[in-house]
Amino acid sequence: MKADYSLYLVTDRKLSLGRSNLDVIEAALDGGVTLVQLREKELGTQEFYLEANKIRELLKARQIPLIINDRIDIALAVDADGVHIGQEDMPLDLARKILGPDKIIGVSVFTIEEARAAEAGGADYLGLSPIFVTSTKPELNKQIGIEGIRPIRQAVKIPIVGIGAMNANNAFEAVKAGLDGIAVVSAIVAQKDITSAARAIKAEVLRAKG
Amino acid sequence: MKADYSLYLVTDRKLSLGRSNLDVIEAALDGGVTLVQLREKELGTQEFYLEANKIRELLKARQIPLIINDRIDIALAVDADGVHIGQEDMPLDLARKILGPDKIIGVSVFTIEEARAAEAGGADYLGLSPIFVTSTKPELNKQIGIEGIRPIRQAVKIPIVGIGAMNANNAFEAVKAGLDGIAVVSAIVAQKDITSAARAIKAEVLRAKG
Repeated sequence: MKADYSLYLVTDRKLSLGRSNLDVIEAALDGGVTLVQLREKELGTQEFYLEANKIRELLKARQIPLIINDRIDIALAVDADGVHIGQEDMPLDLARKILGPDKIIGVSVFTIEEARAAEAGGADYLGLSPIFVTSTKPELNKQIGIEGIRPIRQAVKIPIVGIGAMNANNAFEAVKAGLDGIAVVSAIVAQKDITSAARAIKAEVLRAKG
Repeated sequence: MKADYSLYLVTDRKLSLGRSNLDVIEAALDGGVTLVQLREKELGTQEFYLEANKIRELLKARQIPLIINDRIDIALAVDADGVHIGQEDMPLDLARKILGPDKIIGVSVFTIEEARAAEAGGADYLGLSPIFVTSTKPELNKQIGIEGIRPIRQAVKIPIVGIGAMNANNAFEAVKAGLDGIAVVSAIVAQKDITSAARAIKAEVLRAKG
């Protein structure tokens, strides 16, 4: 499946100022988000499924792909468009075997070696992370930076989204350096005016691509 | 797939006195365990997969079925024999759809209504719980008791294993009351001599069946 990675929203309930994922996503779609990853690290399976199912309905109506973080069982249950797996999640070859050839599989990478391995293993896109160190993942203290994007871009052919403290101020440069899209958590979900926040980042991505 | 539910071991790393799941299971198999459920509530996906894969190899060699608790993605990844789902896990109809007709699906039930719904929904067996209140799940304070087994037995045709403080002292009566097998955690994994502990429970189950 072809996807537009320009503005890739990753949910985070805890950072959403008390708003539901559904409300956050709806407002973000109005601002031009092109793809949504549902990330739930604390829900039980049935709650995660019910949440994913609601979001699936909304996104289907808007023709926006839904990616599930980590949990292939949830992705299968709601017939999501794909999964995003980290280096500590399901091995890529097994994820592909379980999901089949048509689902999107994205893989988090930090190094050129990881990027090449993910591409060779059949990933559809890379989540390059962290471009900048972020308060969402304080355990990561090394960052890729704008200067680290180009070597990864030159090493692989598949789309790359950058994640980690990305926002309207750094999106232009990052896309110019080779990203296909900007993935964001706080810069959208933690903003009072989600639609405007999304719109501002999207404008920078399009200006850089343009 | 037909399975022998006589002595059903559910793993619990925390109760295993520092021994690995693999060591616990190996010793328990020597004592006559007929089926193993791998239950991991705190491992990340890749760790869970790696753990399940090791146990899969051991059990395959012994021709003992492996059931994965809750996580259908892990079950698919290691080609386990089935999954066990609680009332808060994946809805049964979806679990069946994802796993196909041949995998074993067990469902935890407490009431007659849940038992009937699980049977009607295509469950292969029921985990009736808690027969007695157990230190493993202190949040449950109502128990089925020996006297509660028969009404469930009369309500459904599929095999029923009882779980919750089951041991060599109550296994005979519980099987006599209608259970097809005894599922245990602490009464095996927390014992110093796992093989003897398993053997003692197995003997009671066989005595009641025989």
